[in-house]
Amino acid sequence: MKELQQQVCEANLDIHRARLAILTWGNASQVDRESGLFAIKPSGVPYEALRPEQMPIISLESGRQIAGELNPSSDTATHWWLYRNFPEIGGIVHTHSPCGTAWAQARMNIPCLGTTHADTFHGAIPCTRPLRRREVEEDYELNTGKVIVEHFQLSGLNPLEVPGILVSAHAPFTWGTTASQAVTHAEILEEVARIALSTRNLRPAGPEAEDYLLEKHYARKHGKHASYGQAGKECAV
Amino acid sequence: MKELQQQVCEANLDIHRARLAILTWGNASQVDRESGLFAIKPSGVPYEALRPEQMPIISLESGRQIAGELNPSSDTATHWWLYRNFPEIGGIVHTHSPCGTAWAQARMNIPCLGTTHADTFHGAIPCTRPLRRREVEEDYELNTGKVIVEHFQLSGLNPLEVPGILVSAHAPFTWGTTASQAVTHAEILEEVARIALSTRNLRPAGPEAEDYLLEKHYARKHGKHASYGQAGKECAV
Amino acid sequence: MKELQQQVCEANLDIHRARLAILTWGNASQVDRESGLFAIKPSGVPYEALRPEQMPIISLESGRQIAGELNPSSDTATHWWLYRNFPEIGGIVHTHSPCGTAWAQARMNIPCLGTTHADTFHGAIPCTRPLRRREVEEDYELNTGKVIVEHFQLSGLNPLEVPGILVSAHAPFTWGTTASQAVTHAEILEEVARIALSTRNLRPAGPEAEDYLLEKHYARKHGKHASYGQAGKECAV
Amino acid sequence: MKELQQQVCEANLDIHRARLAILTWGNASQVDRESGLFAIKPSGVPYEALRPEQMPIISLESGRQIAGELNPSSDTATHWWLYRNFPEIGGIVHTHSPCGTAWAQARMNIPCLGTTHADTFHGAIPCTRPLRRREVEEDYELNTGKVIVEHFQLSGLNPLEVPGILVSAHAPFTWGTTASQAVTHAEILEEVARIALSTRNLRPAGPEAEDYLLEKHYARKHGKHASYGQAGKECAV
Repeated sequence: MKELQQQVCEANLDIHRARLAILTWGNASQVDRESGLFAIKPSGVPYEALRPEQMPIISLESGRQIAGELNPSSDTATHWWLYRNFPEIGGIVHTHSPCGTAWAQARMNIPCLGTTHADTFHGAIPCTRPLRRREVEEDYELNTGKVIVEHFQLSGLNPLEVPGILVSAHAPFTWGTTASQAVTHAEILEEVARIALSTRNLRPAGPEAEDYLLEKHYARKHGKHASYGQAGKECAV
Repeated sequence: MKELQQQVCEANLDIHRARLAILTWGNASQVDRESGLFAIKPSGVPYEALRPEQMPIISLESGRQIAGELNPSSDTATHWWLYRNFPEIGGIVHTHSPCGTAWAQARMNIPCLGTTHADTFHGAIPCTRPLRRREVEEDYELNTGKVIVEHFQLSGLNPLEVPGILVSAHAPFTWGTTASQAVTHAEILEEVARIALSTRNLRPAGPEAEDYLLEKHYARKHGKHASYGQAGKECAV
Repeated sequence: MKELQQQVCEANLDIHRARLAILTWGNASQVDRESGLFAIKPSGVPYEALRPEQMPIISLESGRQIAGELNPSSDTATHWWLYRNFPEIGGIVHTHSPCGTAWAQARMNIPCLGTTHADTFHGAIPCTRPLRRREVEEDYELNTGKVIVEHFQLSGLNPLEVPGILVSAHAPFTWGTTASQAVTHAEILEEVARIALSTRNLRPAGPEAEDYLLEKHYARKHGKHASYGQAGKECAV
Repeated sequence: MKELQQQVCEANLDIHRARLAILTWGNASQVDRESGLFAIKPSGVPYEALRPEQMPIISLESGRQIAGELNPSSDTATHWWLYRNFPEIGGIVHTHSPCGTAWAQARMNIPCLGTTHADTFHGAIPCTRPLRRREVEEDYELNTGKVIVEHFQLSGLNPLEVPGILVSAHAPFTWGTTASQAVTHAEILEEVARIALSTRNLRPAGPEAEDYLLEKHYARKHGKHASYGQAGKECAV
């Protein structure tokens, strides 16, 4: 539990270091599937005041807090629902990073316009449907999780192949095998969103990346035949 | 009085740290309602040269300087009028932060396009009407305050629910219960303005946030039923 | 001469600190009218390698280098022509700061859209006509100065009231009573250009600032009745 | 070989310092024509973990790795093909810098809109044709090199006069006489792309720089009659 809290604390600080959130506008969590627990950022605490031992611990079974003295993030129910429905993921990040949030507010998918995008996201970064009145008024945070899961189920997308989404009129959620990877995906989503914004500025209805280019780049970094990186080699970090 | 000067000095430095103003283009003030005094940035002094004991002290009654060796900000009469007419506020900030100023120069309200906005501002961030020739030529700074107050009175808005405004062809003013909170609101206004600019770029006439979404997010952070943060808990900062 | 070199060296470093130029893309100079000399940045030297004693010294009479071991900036003849024709100025800065350069490349004046602009520039920041083939092929740098002076003469503008210009398809030049003030004007021009770009994005044909607002703001900071700042007071810097 | 590795390590760190790449999204290489070897960034290694002695060494003859313990960049075949076909170049850089990548994703040349561009690039920065399905599915990285070389051959451009290109739907490649100069060209390409984006925003179909202005600026910095800089003089760096 201590290690989990430490890793989640570190991932929350990384959100701040990568300038993905001002003030307290972002949160990260990580699950330990064996113990059935996840740790998450406390609500409204400035990044510089985060202490690992204060990270709230939530039961994956009940969604209730079982340890950690502070109140958990107000988005805890969203994280909980994603962990329960995406068994392949281990960490989740939510930010209001400016370019990703602009696409979410425009309620538009980020189209796959080039290799920068295809290296990490297998196709467009989707935007959910807007939540309905009742979904917002009752169990809002849980329903945010439900509308994300609904999108992946209806579209047949694989959460590890498309490790993030924009919630309509809200902001991005990303995930990965760890909280640290989820932060990296949040950073990539923001950079991809920034570049796509400028691309659309230059050429509003320009073509998306060819399917074979998308497949090639995605496959260079993912799956059995991945050729990128240093698998099996030792390097300084 | 010393504490007031110290807090106002610190808030002015925060404007600079949050990169909300270049050169000397921003000022913060804070009122002490009991003593009937407010402290404000001296005019034209670079942030790195600010000294708490030099912060001018103004009478809330007369609007005149009663202590502090330096000349007060040229915008002092605006601050004074706001303190007199918005009894619920305790601190005021004025900046020329670039995205907020762009909306002010376009003379447009910043529409509420998503939850990032709704978390702090209960609806659009309004833009005042332009000042008339006579209002500019005589008592300009006082009339800037009057046009702000007029907007809130005519529209029935509550200054603590919409803690800022754009002055037409000029720039943003924000406020809060303290100078420090007013700086935070200035930082949020700038980020919201930046994201709204990009949203409008992507989709010029896209929809605003649903009213029920706006209410939900605003209520999560404000009022009796607020669920955000650590009320009653202790954290490191 | 040593003091002049020191001040020019410092002003060139300020260009870099204010992030108005990458690499070696900016230069500052300052004139001493009594001795009839001006000092200017050496050509192509990185900012971190600038040494005061190496600053080239140019004769205001002949435009030729009379001291300083390094070659002067390739833009020296432009500076020289401006000093000879604008007797009220004491320092000049040239940058390729990105937003100012975008307006220069669009060959458009930066319209006065608000008080941020009017505080420093009395009306639009003009853009020169394009140089003709012969003006570029022979004595290009001198002709750059001539086209600037021509613009001020034909339009009847006062160089101290409009302390800068965009050279068509090129980039901004600014000036002031000292090199240090010229750098400040370059920083303001860039910020004004940035905000005007976003304003035009939001509302392509929106109105310019009312003439009486422009006059008011300009007069608050300039001329006999200026009310801004600490004239006659002592502050820490 | 040690010196080559050191210079390539340094150039890769410069990519990071100039903020041309987030995460591991950029690589630099440099060739030693005498020994027929080039060094290149290892694949997927964070910049802070780069060690000179780990830089992979590739044979210019065979394109195969002959030393250095880590796997070379996945873009190695592109670098190899460029070195073989552009005998005048000594260093290559690839980044996904955001503005350059936006133009590549829009599949548009960056037009020469002003002197900032003309100082380094003799005319538009071209964008390649898209790679075909077969070119992507087989020998993708080699074919990326081939499509770049094809563009220069068909257009009759000189690689040292136009030291960079955008690969369609991908990102920029730049080069120079050394890896360090290639990084400088990558930095200039990004700044030129940023300014051109804003210029097109202000005036979508505005004119390009006059041919005589382009020639003048390019000639000031390049060729026999170059007048820029300190040739033959000593300065501190």
